[in-house]
Amino acid sequence: MPQPAAQVLAASLTPLTADKSIAHDRFAGHVKSLLKKGCDGVLLFGTTGEANSFTVGERRAALESLLEAGVAPSKLVVGTGCCALPDTLSLTRHALELGVHRVLVLPPFYYKNVSEDGLFNTFATLIEQLDHPALRLYLYHFPKMAVVSFTPELIARLAERFPEQLAGIKDSTGNKEHTMMLNSRFPALEVFAGSEMFLLDYLRAGGAGCISATTNLTAGLAAGVRDHYQSPDGEFAQQQLSAVRAVFERYPMIGALKGLLAMQTGDSAWENLRLPLSNLDEDSVAELRHALSELNFPVQAD
Amino acid sequence: MPQPAAQVLAASLTPLTADKSIAHDRFAGHVKSLLKKGCDGVLLFGTTGEANSFTVGERRAALESLLEAGVAPSKLVVGTGCCALPDTLSLTRHALELGVHRVLVLPPFYYKNVSEDGLFNTFATLIEQLDHPALRLYLYHFPKMAVVSFTPELIARLAERFPEQLAGIKDSTGNKEHTMMLNSRFPALEVFAGSEMFLLDYLRAGGAGCISATTNLTAGLAAGVRDHYQSPDGEFAQQQLSAVRAVFERYPMIGALKGLLAMQTGDSAWENLRLPLSNLDEDSVAELRHALSELNFPVQAD
Repeated sequence: MPQPAAQVLAASLTPLTADKSIAHDRFAGHVKSLLKKGCDGVLLFGTTGEANSFTVGERRAALESLLEAGVAPSKLVVGTGCCALPDTLSLTRHALELGVHRVLVLPPFYYKNVSEDGLFNTFATLIEQLDHPALRLYLYHFPKMAVVSFTPELIARLAERFPEQLAGIKDSTGNKEHTMMLNSRFPALEVFAGSEMFLLDYLRAGGAGCISATTNLTAGLAAGVRDHYQSPDGEFAQQQLSAVRAVFERYPMIGALKGLLAMQTGDSAWENLRLPLSNLDEDSVAELRHALSELNFPVQAD
Repeated sequence: MPQPAAQVLAASLTPLTADKSIAHDRFAGHVKSLLKKGCDGVLLFGTTGEANSFTVGERRAALESLLEAGVAPSKLVVGTGCCALPDTLSLTRHALELGVHRVLVLPPFYYKNVSEDGLFNTFATLIEQLDHPALRLYLYHFPKMAVVSFTPELIARLAERFPEQLAGIKDSTGNKEHTMMLNSRFPALEVFAGSEMFLLDYLRAGGAGCISATTNLTAGLAAGVRDHYQSPDGEFAQQQLSAVRAVFERYPMIGALKGLLAMQTGDSAWENLRLPLSNLDEDSVAELRHALSELNFPVQAD
């Protein structure tokens, strides 16, 4: 399989209304703007998208509304991994039926210390029951959040059994060496870094790119690294990108991203989060704003 | 509030058909048999009941079928805690509408390192939106599985704000000192131990009792401890109970319990588990059978 082109995907935030429902119009607008700013694609309902805080019905309705609003299914990756296999199956089948072929799947994450066979059989059952030739399944490896995780041995078993359907991995460890290791070990898979912190080095090493939370706000910079990673322009963009990311990592990520988007757009509805997540407190908002201003990063509406 | 009487509840297994659907008839039969063997009540859809491996719809249908089969709603506690607050709300409202007033609620367990305010507001929103005078809510504290957990400070805030609705805690740490501490600190709450390993000592210390997985198989022994905890008969029953529990703790608990129930009943359908869980391998089954036989514990159909 030829090495895919370098790609930058945003792990989209999910905008909410005042009553904490998904704001469909604002969601479509945000996704379109991320694509317009240079993202190769957008992940819906990852961790940043508060996926597991929504019902299966809410997730289906939101995807339908985005497609009705004109977002191209080929630009989307949809997170579909739930604790209950029938829910994962239902969400994945729904995405496929709507022409979205790329799905990012968490392992079932309630039970801990599950056997490798249990996880293998979960994914094997999912892929076999879907029985869809266009399925492109990405494994969502995020041990800090899901706790349950994918070992290289498990990935190898799945890749061997399902060479057509298993498309890649999103490695959200934040650990550069781990991402590089997966990329070397699985040359037939697209291994995405879960952050753009080491995007330049990763692209230079032949990596697929990133699917990142902060790209909700740094799409232009990340696209700059992607487009110029072999030149000094790319190095400059990466420095800026890393500096901005480092500021966000000081705060609870989703609250910080939504808070800043509210500032940038002048739309305070962006501050709404689904429980159990909370907004940043006022002091943190002021600190975040100050730290980003120091980097000349835009922090208010034009 | 007067100290409640000592109680033993089983955290019921959920029997499945060959296609891994919930076996409604077998479920009702099992719950009735647990009550007949002396359990004061039965918890449906705790961790042992593979709760989070089922959809919201499957959980609702199973509860309805149990009640239609004649199980008294007053004998039941239903696990209703999901990652998505609307799912928790929906399952809890459904239980209340059917006359089941006791619910056991996990914290939303996908996001880790959530603020105390975020968890407090989740439970406050749940209780306020339910707005039901008969609600008796138990907090499900199981840090090894849910990772997200209830600190004493959070419990105190909820108990103070909702003295009528917050009924108690299931402490599944397995840590006797922790359960004793919660029981001393919250005299108005029913604090249940998540195992019967220290049931006798806990009842002697004035504890409410236990809600336990192994009670699926040891209901008679656990009831014996409850009925005789102030006498040497209780001590003898506790020794037997602890010895049996210790055997089960060597294996993945749910697979071991279902495997033994299949042996005891001669009904191999009990061996079905929902993925990602797996049956015990044959060697483990043989070892388990041998170890329990040594204790004169019944391991085959009459």
